[in-house]
Amino acid sequence: MAEESGAAIDFPVKRQREDEELNNHHNHNHNGVEMEGINDNNSISTNKESESISSVIPGWFSEISPMWPGEAHSLKVEKILFQGKSEYQNVMVFQSSTYGNVLVLDGVIQLTERDECAYQEMIVHLPLCSIPNPKKGLFSRNMPRYHKVEYCPLYPSPQPDNLKHWAMSKVQAPYAWPLEDVVLVIGGGDGGVLREVSRHSSVEQIDICEIDKMVVDVSEQFFPHVSIGYKDPRVTLHIGDGVAFLKAVPEGTYDAIIVDSSDPIGPAQELFEKPFFESVAKALRPGGVICTQAESIWLHMHIIEDIVANCRQIFKGSVNYAWTSVPTYPSGVIGFMLCSTEGPHVDFKHPVNPIEGDDSHCKSNGPLKFYNNEMHAAAFCLPSFAKKVIESKAI
Amino acid sequence: MAEESGAAIDFPVKRQREDEELNNHHNHNHNGVEMEGINDNNSISTNKESESISSVIPGWFSEISPMWPGEAHSLKVEKILFQGKSEYQNVMVFQSSTYGNVLVLDGVIQLTERDECAYQEMIVHLPLCSIPNPKKGLFSRNMPRYHKVEYCPLYPSPQPDNLKHWAMSKVQAPYAWPLEDVVLVIGGGDGGVLREVSRHSSVEQIDICEIDKMVVDVSEQFFPHVSIGYKDPRVTLHIGDGVAFLKAVPEGTYDAIIVDSSDPIGPAQELFEKPFFESVAKALRPGGVICTQAESIWLHMHIIEDIVANCRQIFKGSVNYAWTSVPTYPSGVIGFMLCSTEGPHVDFKHPVNPIEGDDSHCKSNGPLKFYNNEMHAAAFCLPSFAKKVIESKAI
Repeated sequence: MAEESGAAIDFPVKRQREDEELNNHHNHNHNGVEMEGINDNNSISTNKESESISSVIPGWFSEISPMWPGEAHSLKVEKILFQGKSEYQNVMVFQSSTYGNVLVLDGVIQLTERDECAYQEMIVHLPLCSIPNPKKGLFSRNMPRYHKVEYCPLYPSPQPDNLKHWAMSKVQAPYAWPLEDVVLVIGGGDGGVLREVSRHSSVEQIDICEIDKMVVDVSEQFFPHVSIGYKDPRVTLHIGDGVAFLKAVPEGTYDAIIVDSSDPIGPAQELFEKPFFESVAKALRPGGVICTQAESIWLHMHIIEDIVANCRQIFKGSVNYAWTSVPTYPSGVIGFMLCSTEGPHVDFKHPVNPIEGDDSHCKSNGPLKFYNNEMHAAAFCLPSFAKKVIESKAI
Repeated sequence: MAEESGAAIDFPVKRQREDEELNNHHNHNHNGVEMEGINDNNSISTNKESESISSVIPGWFSEISPMWPGEAHSLKVEKILFQGKSEYQNVMVFQSSTYGNVLVLDGVIQLTERDECAYQEMIVHLPLCSIPNPKKGLFSRNMPRYHKVEYCPLYPSPQPDNLKHWAMSKVQAPYAWPLEDVVLVIGGGDGGVLREVSRHSSVEQIDICEIDKMVVDVSEQFFPHVSIGYKDPRVTLHIGDGVAFLKAVPEGTYDAIIVDSSDPIGPAQELFEKPFFESVAKALRPGGVICTQAESIWLHMHIIEDIVANCRQIFKGSVNYAWTSVPTYPSGVIGFMLCSTEGPHVDFKHPVNPIEGDDSHCKSNGPLKFYNNEMHAAAFCLPSFAKKVIESKAI
């Protein structure tokens, strides 16, 4: 869940976070936390930044934010591995005593080695197992026939030859699309989402647009099992603003877009608003899918309510909310907004392209730790208090 | 999840908790946390105890335990409402700034007003919706016929007239049991489990055995929406050792036993061990069910592994593990071990006695906030890492 912030351009002034305020006020010492600053062009280990480690429990990192007022989760720090300030955010990596290495952006935990599997696997396989595998589709008796579309009548010539497009075929079935899927990841600079996308052999091309190169670099150095996603030759990394990237994409380019964003205060705010979802819908083929990080039902129902209402207006296919357990995220859960554009029906709750049972993807990335077919279905079951609010937004 | 500790008799020496050690070491001041000591025979507000509030973040309560080393969840304290030391444990209630009133036993959060619904509703309705409603059963075409058993040939005379017993009937269906269920709650002194049990009109009698009266008393005073469970006339409260209580119960007394225990270090340890489960199995009728608090798949797989192995040996009916989200429990989740004794088959995953759709129980207790039919089924879906371990314990 690396910080993705097209909005950083519009909001260049970084908010002062509550934890920074606390640090400034109490001015604690380090209390024996071992430091290992890494010197490159952007990384600066300052006393001010390291204070965030010791402001709550000496030698512990605590996550305090106005996004979850009145509570904090703390992890014991064995060693600070990296502290830097990029153009967009503060970046910190520390070795925790029981959660492995931890990536922190602007004071908020993005991933820990111990539980990152839950987030990465769910945000990827929920959408990608829900769209038909074009390769398998060729041989399916229960699905319309597919064929490779070399020329797409919907788009002006010359057609970009690096992208395969969906197109309607009058000759074949009502809908037809290429033999391979094209996937876009917005944010997700750590590479964990890429690692999971790369398990899908039906995917031909994986574009990623991450605004902050420092996130990519620290992941490569400190999270080798996460950044392994970049080793897939189908991946093309674009360092830049995800919102701007999406606007420049030809309509209907992608089969799936995965938005691995941070919280909607500060730089990532724009990624939770209507214009962004409109750009996503345009960039998707008909029946294409988006999966975006969508906060906690325990903490952020007001935000979720707005996201659902916006998505119902924009995505004319399916609109569903799912959630899963991630211990180091506030309230211990994180949600996902899953939508499809008008076109071939997508039934997110009953995936047509199960990854479980096909072990070919395990060779380079290891077996799935969290996701399975049952967890997929269960993710869409909501507690009554959340179901009531989310269903009230149904048109 | 009130502290239930039959084992306290065997382990009278209370362990010193990590947070107490921290407090003693750092010796912080109160930093403006408002205190309101309550004077009764057992409650004593001492400086030593109030230190646990301020040792981590000034004015915050932090939950540190060897059960979840290297991490801590903290809540901001508005006001300490109660601090006391009973014969068994330290009892504290504070008003938090965003989670309502919070009950803490021996430094561990037992419930907060904001998220207690998840735990109480799941630990009760998972088992009780899984056994047939005897009243409804009379009219079901798909179930064996039931009849009221006034005399049970399995037990010596005189039969206790305050309990209805299961009995085998040669005349009727292979199994027959009374028109009403009898439920035992072990622990759960706060009353939240009772509140949920009382939603089931099929239940005739609700016994509760809680070791610590102070828990019952503070709940009545500070958690009226939780302790409301005691107002049900079907409830009989026994203050005492749950293990001893169970041993004295005639075989086959209960249709369901719900064990609302604290963690298996210190006084509640016995409630996670084989002899306790053997007592439970004896106290249940054939096809009767147990649901017990069974820790976190993220933190305690080694404990869960042992519980599952024990239960598979002892319970010859169904043995299932379920889990749910509770933000203020460590790692944000809690699990439940659900088992049935040999007898009429219990399919926990497909409940035969749904409570959703029947609103008669909402009059006094309000609507369900968390549990519904979908959440019931989803609770049994496990992440791959947990599924692998738990299924490996299958016989």
